[in-house]
Amino acid sequence: MSIKEIKAKDLNTKKFIDEKVREIREAVGDGLAVNALSGGVDSSVVTALGHKALGKRLKTYFIDNGIMRLDEPARVAADFRKMGIEIEVLDASKAFFTALKGLTDPEEKREAITQTFYKKIFRNLVIKSKARYLLQGTILTDVDETVAGIKRQHNVFEQLGIDPQKAFGYKILEPLIQLRKDGVRKVGHGLGLPKHIFDRIPFPGPALAARVIGEVTPAKIAIVKKATAITEAALKNVKAFQYLAILHEDRVTGMRDNKRVFGNQIEIRCWDSLDARTAKPTRLSFNTLEKIAAKITKEIPEVVSVTYNITTKPTSTIEAV
Amino acid sequence: MSIKEIKAKDLNTKKFIDEKVREIREAVGDGLAVNALSGGVDSSVVTALGHKALGKRLKTYFIDNGIMRLDEPARVAADFRKMGIEIEVLDASKAFFTALKGLTDPEEKREAITQTFYKKIFRNLVIKSKARYLLQGTILTDVDETVAGIKRQHNVFEQLGIDPQKAFGYKILEPLIQLRKDGVRKVGHGLGLPKHIFDRIPFPGPALAARVIGEVTPAKIAIVKKATAITEAALKNVKAFQYLAILHEDRVTGMRDNKRVFGNQIEIRCWDSLDARTAKPTRLSFNTLEKIAAKITKEIPEVVSVTYNITTKPTSTIEAV
Repeated sequence: MSIKEIKAKDLNTKKFIDEKVREIREAVGDGLAVNALSGGVDSSVVTALGHKALGKRLKTYFIDNGIMRLDEPARVAADFRKMGIEIEVLDASKAFFTALKGLTDPEEKREAITQTFYKKIFRNLVIKSKARYLLQGTILTDVDETVAGIKRQHNVFEQLGIDPQKAFGYKILEPLIQLRKDGVRKVGHGLGLPKHIFDRIPFPGPALAARVIGEVTPAKIAIVKKATAITEAALKNVKAFQYLAILHEDRVTGMRDNKRVFGNQIEIRCWDSLDARTAKPTRLSFNTLEKIAAKITKEIPEVVSVTYNITTKPTSTIEAV
Repeated sequence: MSIKEIKAKDLNTKKFIDEKVREIREAVGDGLAVNALSGGVDSSVVTALGHKALGKRLKTYFIDNGIMRLDEPARVAADFRKMGIEIEVLDASKAFFTALKGLTDPEEKREAITQTFYKKIFRNLVIKSKARYLLQGTILTDVDETVAGIKRQHNVFEQLGIDPQKAFGYKILEPLIQLRKDGVRKVGHGLGLPKHIFDRIPFPGPALAARVIGEVTPAKIAIVKKATAITEAALKNVKAFQYLAILHEDRVTGMRDNKRVFGNQIEIRCWDSLDARTAKPTRLSFNTLEKIAAKITKEIPEVVSVTYNITTKPTSTIEAV
């Protein structure tokens, strides 16, 4: 089945929303649906769209995996509450840190997060909710990347460990599948989502675990969480495709109170890019760079050194893990 | 005994050189002297001064520890040959790499290099040479730092494992001990040393071992040697106190030939500083930074990512190890 793309420039936002609301209502009837909200653009838009269609018959879970940005769960829940949408936040951080323990290989880290999310946490929620419909924020780029072999296939049932045959009646709804990211942002705007949600910079699936080199521990996540908050606040008005802070495993010499110490290093990356396939470091001013470094080393005692990535993609990638 | 400082501005270079030449001749008489040349400013100046005083009765060794800059031994020997001074280059790299094997702690790495240099290599040369005089490029800053406990004491006999009592007759000559670095540079100029020697940027005692995070191996030294050459060539006309390239142990994701690879990261540092006690990152242009990164990732296949340090000292230090 080929999917008919709707380009952002051809998108009639109001008409699109009305159509999708009707389709979701027709599919779900008087049943129950469930979805997982990550706080990213796609899942935020699908949450708002689903609630417009189904109201309280859509149960939205926000699974706090412990590797999210600073105050993320509370902030996302508050944003949606303001729109009259109740989100159930579930603290699953222990399960994720347990799964990540001892892993240093980036692919193994990614896999541990995916498996914990689908097989361990979300699977039980779906079963408990008795919902027969799953709303998923899949967009056309995800489908393309699956076909190209860049990402794993978005076969949610399989990922949940649910045999669609046995679990007859389960249906997955992907109302955004004809859109690209720019179209999704337009729909988010049309649904009345705040700009800081529908215009948010991309954030990796493995969340802050992708921003830690080596083993992911609660202590390291606490450091990179603070560095990320400082970096995002400092660069929020910069016209960049993406910006991020990475916690290195290497220790470097530093000075605290006139004494030599071995401390951590944070690497800042900020990218100019159109489509993430190639990217250049944003030419930030040294004023900005030095302010970020000063704030990070002041507010995070473990960090003595901050760098800025000056490589293009390729040979670098946008994220480090 | 207090040492009478001669400030660079009060230094009469010709008079100083004449005096020191006479003092060295008076001390050594018709005996033999020996010194070790590292290629740095102080030991280069003391080598030229000693040869002016003693000619062939000063035996100068250049100990190649394998962790020097690209082509350093040959280049230093050639520079001195042009001035009519013969240097004996000794390849001791195996002894140093053996001593460094398995060490990751910065202090242990430094200690292994110091011990191998003094106790294992230079000690035998001194004994074999039958010289009773050691010329040493100690400057007043070294003495200050010894007193302040920043560096180890410059007690060369002890470091050589030679008991001055038993080895009665050994004498150490330190003709530059009243000077600071700026005075030494003036003397180097006065002795006719080429500007690229007497104006050279500082280089750490543990050489490129100080530019490798983690265990020092021949393969890692080969990478950081190339990165250092590229960085020094690109920044040689920049008015900076010091610039350097550091090889990290952490591996980051990169792209080579459209495939994901895990590669090395090089960190560039370039410092504005008066006295090395505090320092700021030099505000290099992004043109320069991006060119360095492109050249490093092009010419060193192992490296996929390059960063620039944006922290001040403190909390950073000039070197990373």
